[in-house]
Amino acid sequence: MAIITLLTDYGTSDSYVGEVKGVLLSLAPGVTLVDITHEIAPGDIAAAGYILARAWSRFPAGTVHFAVVDPGVGTPRAALAFKTRDHSFVGPDNGIFGGVLKGAEVAAVQLAVPPGAAATFHGRDLFGPAAAALARGEPLDKLGQPFSAIPRRLSGIAPHYEGKVVIGEVIYVDRYGNLVTNLTTEFVPPYAVLEAEALTIGPLRSTFGDVDKGGLVAYIGSGGTVEVAVRDGSAARRLGLGVGGRVRARLG
Amino acid sequence: MAIITLLTDYGTSDSYVGEVKGVLLSLAPGVTLVDITHEIAPGDIAAAGYILARAWSRFPAGTVHFAVVDPGVGTPRAALAFKTRDHSFVGPDNGIFGGVLKGAEVAAVQLAVPPGAAATFHGRDLFGPAAAALARGEPLDKLGQPFSAIPRRLSGIAPHYEGKVVIGEVIYVDRYGNLVTNLTTEFVPPYAVLEAEALTIGPLRSTFGDVDKGGLVAYIGSGGTVEVAVRDGSAARRLGLGVGGRVRARLG
Amino acid sequence: MAIITLLTDYGTSDSYVGEVKGVLLSLAPGVTLVDITHEIAPGDIAAAGYILARAWSRFPAGTVHFAVVDPGVGTPRAALAFKTRDHSFVGPDNGIFGGVLKGAEVAAVQLAVPPGAAATFHGRDLFGPAAAALARGEPLDKLGQPFSAIPRRLSGIAPHYEGKVVIGEVIYVDRYGNLVTNLTTEFVPPYAVLEAEALTIGPLRSTFGDVDKGGLVAYIGSGGTVEVAVRDGSAARRLGLGVGGRVRARLG
Repeated sequence: MAIITLLTDYGTSDSYVGEVKGVLLSLAPGVTLVDITHEIAPGDIAAAGYILARAWSRFPAGTVHFAVVDPGVGTPRAALAFKTRDHSFVGPDNGIFGGVLKGAEVAAVQLAVPPGAAATFHGRDLFGPAAAALARGEPLDKLGQPFSAIPRRLSGIAPHYEGKVVIGEVIYVDRYGNLVTNLTTEFVPPYAVLEAEALTIGPLRSTFGDVDKGGLVAYIGSGGTVEVAVRDGSAARRLGLGVGGRVRARLG
Repeated sequence: MAIITLLTDYGTSDSYVGEVKGVLLSLAPGVTLVDITHEIAPGDIAAAGYILARAWSRFPAGTVHFAVVDPGVGTPRAALAFKTRDHSFVGPDNGIFGGVLKGAEVAAVQLAVPPGAAATFHGRDLFGPAAAALARGEPLDKLGQPFSAIPRRLSGIAPHYEGKVVIGEVIYVDRYGNLVTNLTTEFVPPYAVLEAEALTIGPLRSTFGDVDKGGLVAYIGSGGTVEVAVRDGSAARRLGLGVGGRVRARLG
Repeated sequence: MAIITLLTDYGTSDSYVGEVKGVLLSLAPGVTLVDITHEIAPGDIAAAGYILARAWSRFPAGTVHFAVVDPGVGTPRAALAFKTRDHSFVGPDNGIFGGVLKGAEVAAVQLAVPPGAAATFHGRDLFGPAAAALARGEPLDKLGQPFSAIPRRLSGIAPHYEGKVVIGEVIYVDRYGNLVTNLTTEFVPPYAVLEAEALTIGPLRSTFGDVDKGGLVAYIGSGGTVEVAVRDGSAARRLGLGVGGRVRARLG
């Protein structure tokens, strides 16, 4: 039986996640449910997109991903279901899937709102039933009309050069206060010197353990981009940096 | 195999939820466990009852609901197991089931405390084994003596009229700061004007999207009662309102 | 199919838990995943060890426990997999297993870091695959070289006598603010009088319900040691006590 992952901003203190799971287990008996997270800050589509982009491909082929951070619920934004690289996805067309939709073939449909659906809870009444249908093996094209537009993506943040310096930025801050940047390895040769705002960090290391406790360190994180951390501490707090903060690689 | 849902005030940072799940999986191998929430404020029976009332019926027939917010653990409050409308429930007789027990037929038993049970952890040592037995299909009447009293309910909060105004109140505040009231649709005709404390909100809308960002809006929420929200914001914070706050429908 | 429990300091707001679960479900299809907690304060090995020691034995024989609170990830600390009393465990050799490794026979191996593993995310790339292999039934000795050293334990905290007083201390504070101590029953005869710092609490009671609301009470908690609580309140807040605070049993 299939797996459905769940990624929302519902939090875990209300009934919302439970209601969605009840619907999924009623409509797709025996399905395996896995929470990615429900702690996305309300409406933070960028953070949800980052987490989805990291997590989805770790799951087996055939997995259905329910990704609903949907501040526009009840407005005319499209509701999508699509398949790509043997995984299925359901959620709003608001940019949350930008990190998944990268050049691979996609088949997408637009979901119609069922009669009686709560206008404020499409997760339960629209996306949940669609995810359950996909988990049961129903063909995608039975779920809605073909969606021929290009799914929305958030305005891209990309590193750029200013002379011999690559300018990147923080795109996510994790629980430990590690600053995850958009600097992929190709921008950071071994001789590059990393800087966070006005501070020089030094060359890339392998891991926290390469510096003393309390030391600042930059390394290629488990998501494949440069991260800045404080060993046994929080770089976000130490540096006062968050999403959008500048991290540079000085090449000479 | 059956499903057991879990609803507690144990939080998710201690070992308590894990211990209960270990007991459930030991006594009912193969059971599917689903967390409703464990983030109920310690001892907040009313919030737990609201969430249970919303979530339970979304699950398939045969589901067992473990609902243990039990500030009176170790006092003489009765420990219950009961069946109604093809679902089973275990938990303390302290009002938590008030939203479930509404007029349908109920068969209930009182659970006896097993020898050696920790007086402070009936979830693990009393309610857990009872939930597992029900999930395994054991008949209810093997679990305890018939419970002939009427299960406790919290003193009801009901809307009432003052002239041409229906007086309701906030019964729950969700993660988004949306104010959930006890005003069901029959109290709020289309021409009614909603008010929160001294503030006029206007007539019912369909959803957040019907007002501009930052705007106040009232609508019938996904739980079937009037909610007051701020689009992309928190009504609780904006209005300084919480549980017990007044929300009125002015009819003329 | 086996059960894998998860105990980490990853939090639940990032992608980390989801990534690990994706790996586990990919490498051990059909496995049942159970969260113990992911809310351990970053790097708090002692709290993780306390929770693991309470929870593991509640699960059925054959369960695999993934316990990764690993501030030394990427340093030369050993990565362990071991079996004891029909349960399996994977995690770092940093003391987290001190409460599990108590005198029973143990077979342990040291895991080698696979090529390409992220130096900062051994949970996903090293411990996850090892846990999945154990859940699939692979023999322990296929997973690594025999580990002949003695696994690390945190420096023990043990009650001691000062004349007719047993000096214990708080080893954990739970969500309710209950103070869990290291005083086991053999140190606290029925005539003992409990004290927390300068305050006299009185003799052991059975449960909160034995005192009035707001009253201080000491009792043998569900983990088998003395706890100090405030009925319907927080003893930690009332007494200003946390881990390391003194709790004494006066014997005469």
